[in-house]
Amino acid sequence: MSGTEQAPTSARTRRRGDDLVRAIHAAVLAEVIEVGVGGLTMEGIAKRAATAKTSLYRRWASPRELLLDALHEAHPEEVPSLSADDLRGDLINALRQLVSWMVTPAATAVMAIMNERHRYPDLVDALYEQVFGARGGTVTSVVLRHYADQGKLDPDLLTPVVRDIGEALVFKRALDTGVLPDDETLVAIVDQAVLPAVGIPPEPGR
Amino acid sequence: MSGTEQAPTSARTRRRGDDLVRAIHAAVLAEVIEVGVGGLTMEGIAKRAATAKTSLYRRWASPRELLLDALHEAHPEEVPSLSADDLRGDLINALRQLVSWMVTPAATAVMAIMNERHRYPDLVDALYEQVFGARGGTVTSVVLRHYADQGKLDPDLLTPVVRDIGEALVFKRALDTGVLPDDETLVAIVDQAVLPAVGIPPEPGR
Repeated sequence: MSGTEQAPTSARTRRRGDDLVRAIHAAVLAEVIEVGVGGLTMEGIAKRAATAKTSLYRRWASPRELLLDALHEAHPEEVPSLSADDLRGDLINALRQLVSWMVTPAATAVMAIMNERHRYPDLVDALYEQVFGARGGTVTSVVLRHYADQGKLDPDLLTPVVRDIGEALVFKRALDTGVLPDDETLVAIVDQAVLPAVGIPPEPGR
Repeated sequence: MSGTEQAPTSARTRRRGDDLVRAIHAAVLAEVIEVGVGGLTMEGIAKRAATAKTSLYRRWASPRELLLDALHEAHPEEVPSLSADDLRGDLINALRQLVSWMVTPAATAVMAIMNERHRYPDLVDALYEQVFGARGGTVTSVVLRHYADQGKLDPDLLTPVVRDIGEALVFKRALDTGVLPDDETLVAIVDQAVLPAVGIPPEPGR
């Protein structure tokens, strides 16, 4: 694998470097899902990525730093529509992004970490600060802030509770049913829970 | 222990019988937390409750039936205020009941079952049908239905999503912070998320 670890002096080498990073990111996620946070070692990750331990230490100081980097990379970023004219559509899309993320190894890895939170509280803190927070807080936050900045929503209504409604209901539904919420459910969450909380009255049947 | 297992011919004997049932209920919850659903046996439960296996089989056909009975018994029941004149207060109280339940062994046992749901989907189905459903569905449902029955809320607004808002936000907050939501948070959930969804507009700063 040493060919992929040269300094990035050409496009071809850079691409190889990116491939290696992707392989290592995939390896750390698979590893934490299989062996848990406590079982995570540079050796195990390197072996799974079919590379040398030294190539990991060149980029990351510890398995934990590598894990957080992989989760950060995999985390969805909300992109409000450029027109800023479709709050409802943008909120539904934000929840769709969340649901798409929930089927990835990154989401399974996050669950594995959360299940061990009492053993690794510092890691969970770092996860919220460096991954969830760094990506704009809870899903729907970026969209809501965007429309508030445009003067289309009262910014004082965007409390931590309100920013959390969409995500909370998606997680709850997944927990209750054991399957990911379908599009109809996402639309209902936006129409019946998120929009009323930001001042758009609910309508029966919507 | 045979003295506690006589037919309930006197108040004293009945009380003993109740004590025994309580001890067995506590034992099955402690047992599922420690050994998981797969490790649950009548023998293990009987041993932990310091009683004979036969006294379990006299009341329950299987460890699973016993487990569901214990969870049903421990599950909180919402009681709306008799006046039916304090929707906000009743909703806050319903969420307080949920938070109180979350520190009980029953809640820990539910989490243990949910963590193994892919292995025991039938048990999770039974949990929702016989325990959560039997106790009035999601917390806040009973209160919301009560006020709708009194003509104080539009019943068409009480969709599955709306009935789930309070509970979803309590669980999400507990997941995010690792601690149970405090009273201020419960009030914020009711004011900023539940009430707007049933047609009471949000007010900034409430």
